[in-house]
Amino acid sequence: MIVSSAAYAAGCKVADIPLDELGAWAKREGHFVWVGLFEPSDAEIGTVQAQLGLHDLAVEDAHRAYQRPKLEEYGESLFVVLRTMRWNPEKRAIDRGETHVFVGPGAVVSIRHGDTGSYSEVRGRCEATPGHLAKGPGFVLYALMDHVVDSYFPVIEHIEDRVAKLEKAIFGEHPQRNTTQRIYELKRRLIQAKRAVSPLVDICNRLTRWDGHQLIPDEVRPYFRDVYDHVVRINESIDGLRELLSGALEANLSLISIRQNDIMKKLASWAGILAVPTLLVGIWGMNFETMPELHLPFAYPLALVFMAALMWLLHRQFKRAGWL
Amino acid sequence: MIVSSAAYAAGCKVADIPLDELGAWAKREGHFVWVGLFEPSDAEIGTVQAQLGLHDLAVEDAHRAYQRPKLEEYGESLFVVLRTMRWNPEKRAIDRGETHVFVGPGAVVSIRHGDTGSYSEVRGRCEATPGHLAKGPGFVLYALMDHVVDSYFPVIEHIEDRVAKLEKAIFGEHPQRNTTQRIYELKRRLIQAKRAVSPLVDICNRLTRWDGHQLIPDEVRPYFRDVYDHVVRINESIDGLRELLSGALEANLSLISIRQNDIMKKLASWAGILAVPTLLVGIWGMNFETMPELHLPFAYPLALVFMAALMWLLHRQFKRAGWL
Amino acid sequence: MIVSSAAYAAGCKVADIPLDELGAWAKREGHFVWVGLFEPSDAEIGTVQAQLGLHDLAVEDAHRAYQRPKLEEYGESLFVVLRTMRWNPEKRAIDRGETHVFVGPGAVVSIRHGDTGSYSEVRGRCEATPGHLAKGPGFVLYALMDHVVDSYFPVIEHIEDRVAKLEKAIFGEHPQRNTTQRIYELKRRLIQAKRAVSPLVDICNRLTRWDGHQLIPDEVRPYFRDVYDHVVRINESIDGLRELLSGALEANLSLISIRQNDIMKKLASWAGILAVPTLLVGIWGMNFETMPELHLPFAYPLALVFMAALMWLLHRQFKRAGWL
Amino acid sequence: MIVSSAAYAAGCKVADIPLDELGAWAKREGHFVWVGLFEPSDAEIGTVQAQLGLHDLAVEDAHRAYQRPKLEEYGESLFVVLRTMRWNPEKRAIDRGETHVFVGPGAVVSIRHGDTGSYSEVRGRCEATPGHLAKGPGFVLYALMDHVVDSYFPVIEHIEDRVAKLEKAIFGEHPQRNTTQRIYELKRRLIQAKRAVSPLVDICNRLTRWDGHQLIPDEVRPYFRDVYDHVVRINESIDGLRELLSGALEANLSLISIRQNDIMKKLASWAGILAVPTLLVGIWGMNFETMPELHLPFAYPLALVFMAALMWLLHRQFKRAGWL
Amino acid sequence: MIVSSAAYAAGCKVADIPLDELGAWAKREGHFVWVGLFEPSDAEIGTVQAQLGLHDLAVEDAHRAYQRPKLEEYGESLFVVLRTMRWNPEKRAIDRGETHVFVGPGAVVSIRHGDTGSYSEVRGRCEATPGHLAKGPGFVLYALMDHVVDSYFPVIEHIEDRVAKLEKAIFGEHPQRNTTQRIYELKRRLIQAKRAVSPLVDICNRLTRWDGHQLIPDEVRPYFRDVYDHVVRINESIDGLRELLSGALEANLSLISIRQNDIMKKLASWAGILAVPTLLVGIWGMNFETMPELHLPFAYPLALVFMAALMWLLHRQFKRAGWL
Repeated sequence: MIVSSAAYAAGCKVADIPLDELGAWAKREGHFVWVGLFEPSDAEIGTVQAQLGLHDLAVEDAHRAYQRPKLEEYGESLFVVLRTMRWNPEKRAIDRGETHVFVGPGAVVSIRHGDTGSYSEVRGRCEATPGHLAKGPGFVLYALMDHVVDSYFPVIEHIEDRVAKLEKAIFGEHPQRNTTQRIYELKRRLIQAKRAVSPLVDICNRLTRWDGHQLIPDEVRPYFRDVYDHVVRINESIDGLRELLSGALEANLSLISIRQNDIMKKLASWAGILAVPTLLVGIWGMNFETMPELHLPFAYPLALVFMAALMWLLHRQFKRAGWL
Repeated sequence: MIVSSAAYAAGCKVADIPLDELGAWAKREGHFVWVGLFEPSDAEIGTVQAQLGLHDLAVEDAHRAYQRPKLEEYGESLFVVLRTMRWNPEKRAIDRGETHVFVGPGAVVSIRHGDTGSYSEVRGRCEATPGHLAKGPGFVLYALMDHVVDSYFPVIEHIEDRVAKLEKAIFGEHPQRNTTQRIYELKRRLIQAKRAVSPLVDICNRLTRWDGHQLIPDEVRPYFRDVYDHVVRINESIDGLRELLSGALEANLSLISIRQNDIMKKLASWAGILAVPTLLVGIWGMNFETMPELHLPFAYPLALVFMAALMWLLHRQFKRAGWL
Repeated sequence: MIVSSAAYAAGCKVADIPLDELGAWAKREGHFVWVGLFEPSDAEIGTVQAQLGLHDLAVEDAHRAYQRPKLEEYGESLFVVLRTMRWNPEKRAIDRGETHVFVGPGAVVSIRHGDTGSYSEVRGRCEATPGHLAKGPGFVLYALMDHVVDSYFPVIEHIEDRVAKLEKAIFGEHPQRNTTQRIYELKRRLIQAKRAVSPLVDICNRLTRWDGHQLIPDEVRPYFRDVYDHVVRINESIDGLRELLSGALEANLSLISIRQNDIMKKLASWAGILAVPTLLVGIWGMNFETMPELHLPFAYPLALVFMAALMWLLHRQFKRAGWL
Repeated sequence: MIVSSAAYAAGCKVADIPLDELGAWAKREGHFVWVGLFEPSDAEIGTVQAQLGLHDLAVEDAHRAYQRPKLEEYGESLFVVLRTMRWNPEKRAIDRGETHVFVGPGAVVSIRHGDTGSYSEVRGRCEATPGHLAKGPGFVLYALMDHVVDSYFPVIEHIEDRVAKLEKAIFGEHPQRNTTQRIYELKRRLIQAKRAVSPLVDICNRLTRWDGHQLIPDEVRPYFRDVYDHVVRINESIDGLRELLSGALEANLSLISIRQNDIMKKLASWAGILAVPTLLVGIWGMNFETMPELHLPFAYPLALVFMAALMWLLHRQFKRAGWL
Repeated sequence: MIVSSAAYAAGCKVADIPLDELGAWAKREGHFVWVGLFEPSDAEIGTVQAQLGLHDLAVEDAHRAYQRPKLEEYGESLFVVLRTMRWNPEKRAIDRGETHVFVGPGAVVSIRHGDTGSYSEVRGRCEATPGHLAKGPGFVLYALMDHVVDSYFPVIEHIEDRVAKLEKAIFGEHPQRNTTQRIYELKRRLIQAKRAVSPLVDICNRLTRWDGHQLIPDEVRPYFRDVYDHVVRINESIDGLRELLSGALEANLSLISIRQNDIMKKLASWAGILAVPTLLVGIWGMNFETMPELHLPFAYPLALVFMAALMWLLHRQFKRAGWL
C-alpha cells in the first residue's frame, strides 16, 4: 500500500507524485522524493526498485519481515532495517513491527511491516521545519530513526513498571502464586527487546561517524549522535532490568525457602502442643490396677486443667522462640 | 563417491568431465569446474589434489570429518569447512554432517561427510540462473554456504518449538517428571549448534571483506554479507534460547520448591485436623473414676458431632488460609 | 535560577556580570566567564545559548534531566553530562542529581538539576588558587568533575557499611527476616550507581588523552588522569560489592537450607521422644484379659519411671547426634 | 639426563654429538642440532646454555617446572613452555608434565619435566620424512607442539566419557550419592586443563603469523595453523564441557528437590492412611456409658473390615494422585 | 621515616647521603640515588620532591595510602603504586600494605605504607650483583616489583590450602556448620587479592613494551616480562580459585539438600515403624463387647511378639530401601 509519495525541494513539499515518476524527480537538482509504503505488493516494490535503482539483495530483504536490525551500504545507497516496538495502552500490549528504510541520492523510501504505527506524524514534523528538512534524505533517515527509538521508551517504562509490581509481589505480605511465571515472561520480553535494540548501538555509531558519507551531511551527524545516545540509554536500561530480574528471581527463591522454614516451624510447634497431652491421656487411659490419682476427687477436671495449662505453656514457648 | 563433476562456461554447463581432466578444464580461459564428492576414497581425493594442486594440509583435513568450521587460505585457494545440521521431519531428529569446500582459480570442489543431504538442488538452482553462475567459483561457494546456513533455520525453529513446549510443561497444571532432563538435553543440543554456527560469523565476515580477493569478485561480496546476516541471526537465536533455557531451569526449580511448600501445608493441615479429635477421644478414653459427661444421655453422639464439627471448622480455617 | 555569573582573568574574578554580557566578556583576550545555573528557565538558557553560541542539541539535552553521563564535542565546545550522588547523613539517604557542563572558548556553564549540592565550594577553592584557575575553562571542568566524583566515595562507603551489616545479619546468631530484601535493595542501588559511574571511565579517559584539545591545555590533562583514577577505583569498588552481594545471597540461601535441616532434626527428635511412650501407654491400655504386669504392686509408678527413663535416654541420644 | 643429541643436515641425521660440540655444529651452514633433555642437571643445562648462547631468564625458567604455557622471544631465539597432559590408560589417570623448547638459529632443545612421555616417537617420525625435517628447527618445534597438542585429545575424550557417565548417574533410576563430588572433581580437572590449553591459542596464533620470523620459514606457518586449529577445538570442547557440567549440577539439584517432594508425598500419604483408623479406634475406645454399636453382634469384625476398607480407599486415592 | 638513602655508581654503593643532597647526586654522570622511606612525614616528602622535582599530583597520591595499583608517567619520571600482600605465618594472617615507587633520571624512591616488610633484602640482593644494579633505576624498579609480586605466591598458596581444607569439610564424613561462612570469607579475600593483582597485568605489560623509554633500558625489559609472567600466573590462580569456590558453594548447597532428604527419610521410616503398632494397640484397646482374641490364652504376649515382629519387618524394609 502506498501511504504517501511526494517530492521535496528546499525543505518544502512541491508535489505528490506517482511511483513511476520517482526516478525523474529524484534526479532533479535540489529535489528529493520521500515514499512511504505499508506492506507493499510485489508490483509496488518492483516499480520503486526500477525507478530508484535499488540493489536486488536489499529489495529481497525488504520483502520479508523478521529481519535483524542492520545497516548496509549498496554502492551509493543505504539500507536500514529497524524493529519497532510500541506500547499500546489500549490493548495493554506491545505492538511489534519492522521498518525498512532505503536512502539513496535524492530518495528516501520507508517500508513498514506489522504494527509500526504510521509515520505521518514524522512527515508532519519534518514539513513543519523546512530548515531541517532541507538537509535532505539523511535528515529524513534521522527523523525516522529518532521516532522509532523514542517509541521504545514507553515500552521500557512499562516493563520497569511491571518489575516494580513484581517486587511488591515478592516482598509483600501476600506472596502470589504466579510470581515465578511473571519473572520468566518479563525475562523473555527483555530478551526480545534486547535483540531489537542492541544492533542499533552499532548502527547509530556508524551513522555518527563514517557510513553513508555522500548521503549524510556533516551537519546531520550530531543528530545521529543523539539517537545513538538514546539507544545506549535504552540498552543500559534493558541490561539493568535483566540484572534486577535475575536478582528478583533469586530473592523469590530465598523467600520461598524461608516460608518453608516458617511452615515447618508451625507444623512442629502444633505437633508438639498436641502430642504432649495425647501422651498424658494415654497414661491415664492405661489399665493398671492401682492408679491412685484416678480415684481422687476432682481428679478429672484437674487433669483437664493441667493439660490445658501445659498446652498454653508450650504455645507460649513456641511463640517466644518465633516458631508460631 | 563422485556425485557430479562438470565444467561451466559463462554460467552454463559445457561438459560432464572425468576427474583426471579437471586440471585442463580449470585452466581454460572463462571456464571453471565444479566437483561434488561424497565421502570420497583416497584415490579420488588424490586425483583431485593432483589435478587442482591442493595443499597437503587441506587435503589431510578433508579426509577426516569432525573438523571445526574454518576458512583457510592456501596460496591462491580457499578451504572452507562447514558443519551441517538439518531437521529431518521423518526421523524427528537432527541430521548432522560436514561439508568441505575447496575454491581455487577455476575450480570448486565440495566434499560431503555424514548426513548433509545432496547439493544437487544447489547445483540446479545455480544452473537455472546463468547470469549469477557466470560470476565463477566464488558464487558457487556463496550458493553452498547459503544452502547450509538456510538449513539451520528449521533446526532452530524445532528447538524453539521444544522450548515452548517445555514452558507449558513447567508452568502448566500438571508438572511433568522429566522436565529437568528435557531442559538439560536442549541445553546440550544448543551447545552443539553453537559450536557449528559461531565460527561461521567470523568466516562470513572475512569473506564479506577481504579474504580470497582473487576468487571472490567484488560483486559477489554483498551476497556473503547476506549469509553473514543469517548466521548472526541464527547465532543470536541460539544465545536467546540458551538464556531462556537457563531461565526455565530456574523457574522450574522455584516451582518445585513452591510445590513442596504446598505439600507441606497440606500435610500440616490434615495432621492438625486429625490430631485434635484424636486428643479428645484420648481424653474420653481415660479411666478417671468421675467423668460425669460420660454418663449423660446422648453424650456419645453429641461427642461425635462435636468432633466432626471441630474437624469441619479446622478444615475451613486451613482452606481459608490457603493451606488446603 | 542564576546561582552566579562572573568573569575571570589571570585566575581572579574581575566582575559579576549579567547573562547578556557573557558573549562580550568571553571574547576578551585572557578572560573567561563561569556561569552557574540551577534548574534554569527557558529564557535563561536561551540567553546563555545566544551569548555563547551553544549547539541546539546540547541545549535541548541541558533542558531535561535523566541523561546518561556523556561527553560530546560540538565544534569547538564540549558538553559534559554528569550524574551526581551524595550521601546525605541527615536524611540517611542518597541525594541524586545531574549536572551539565558546557565548556567553550572563554566560557564554562554549569547547570544543576535535582539534589546536587551547590558548587560554590568548588568556586571558592578555585578562586583560592589563582595559579590553577588561570589555566582557564578546562581547569574549571576538572574542578567540577573532581568534586562530583569525590562525592561518590561517601556513597560507596555507606553501601560498604550496609554490606558489612548484612554479613553480620547473615552469619550472626539471630537470622533476620528481611535479609533477602536488603540484599536485593542494595543490588538495585549498586546497579544505579554503576550506571552513573561507568560511563565516566570512558569520558575521563578521553579527556586525559585527546578530546577538547583547544580547551584543555596539556598541563591540565594529568589532573583529569587523577579523576580517571578515582572513577576507576569507584567502579572497581562497585563491581567488588556486587560480587560480594551475590556471594552473600548464595550464603544466605545456604544458611536458610541448613536452618531447615536443623528444624527438621528437632522435629524428628521430639516426635521420636514422644512416640515411644505413646506406644507403651497404648499397650498398657489394651483390653487383653490376661496382662499380668497390670496387677503387680507398684506397676504403675514403675511404668511411669520406665517411660521417663526411656524419654531421657532418647533425648540424650538425639543430643549426642547433634539433632537437638 | 641427556635423552639424545644429534646434528641434522638436509633432513637427515648426520651425527650423534656430545653437548660440548653443540655450538660448533649449530653454526655449520645447513646444519642444525636437536637436543632432548629430561629433567637435566645444572651442569647439563649450563653446557647447553654456553654452547648455544641461551638467555639467562629463559634458562632460569627452564630449570623449574610449573610454568605457565608461554612463548617468548629472546633476540633471535624462541623459548616455548608447554604443559603436557596424557591419558594413561593403565593407571587410569592423567599424566601431567611440562616441556620447554628452545629454538635458536641452527638449534632446538627440548627439556621435559614430569610425566610427559618420550619424544623419541616425534624424532622418529621427523627422521622418516627428511623432506619436512629439512625445513629446520621451526619444523621440529611444530612437530613437538603437534605431538603435545594431539595427546590432549584422549584426555578430553576421557573427560567427555565421565561426563556421559555422570549424566546417566543423574538421570538414571538409581541416584548415586557421590554425584555432587564427581561433578566438582570434573570441574576442577577442567579448570586445570583449561589453564594448560588456553594460553596455547595465543601462542599458536603468534607462531602462525609473525613471531620468530627468522626461525620459522613461511612454508612452515600453515603447519602451525593446523596446531592452532586443534588447540581452538580442544579449547572449545573444554568450554562446552564446563557448560554441560554446570548444567548437570543444576539438573542434579533440581532432581534432589524433586525427590524430596516425592518423599514428602509418601510420608504424608502413609501418615494419612494410618491416622484415620487410629482416630476410629480411639473413638471406639472411649468410655461413654452408652455406645450402642459396641454391643452389636459382629460389631468388632465389621469395624475391622470398615477400617481396612478405609485404608484401602485412602491408599487408592493417594496412588491415583501420584503421591504413592 | 628514612629507611635508607644512598648513591650508587657502576652498581656499587658510593655513599650514604642525606635527603637534601639527593638532587646533586642524581645529576652526577653515571650515578643514581636510591631512597627508601617508610610512612614519611610531610617534611621528608617535601624535601625529596624539591630535590628530585617530582610532580605535585604524584606526591599527593604518595601521601595517602589505599590507592589502586597504577603506573603513571609524569614527564620523564614514572610513578608506580603497588599493593603488597604477605602471608605472615606467625600471625596466621595476610599483611597488607602499599608501596609507591618514583623512578626518575638518576633516582629511585620507594615509599612504604602499612605492613609491607622492609626492602633491605632487595637492596642487599641488588648490591650483591653490581653487574645488574649498574643498569640503573629501571633495574631497581624491577627488583622491587619482582619482590612484591613474589610475595603474592605464599598468599595464594595459603588460600589454595584453605580451599583444599574446605573441600574436605564439604565432602567429608562430618559436615561442618561454618562451611558457608568460610566459603564466603575466602571469596571476599580473593576479591581483594584480585584487585591488588589484576591492574599489575597491564602495568607490567606496559613496562615490558613501551613505557618509560628513557628510564628502562632495553636489556631490562625482558626482566619485566618475567614479572609480567608471574603476575599473569597469579591472576589465573585467583580466577581458578574463584571458580572452584563457586563450585564448592554449589556442591555444598547440593549436599545440604541431600542431607535433608536423608533426614526426611529417617523421620518417615521411624514414624511408620511406630505408627503401625500404635494402631494395633488402639484396636485392642477398643471397648467392643465381643473381641474374642482378647480372651485367648497367651493372647497378650503373642500380640506383643506380633507387634515387635512387625516393627522388625518394617525396619528391615526401610533399611533395604536405603531409608535408614
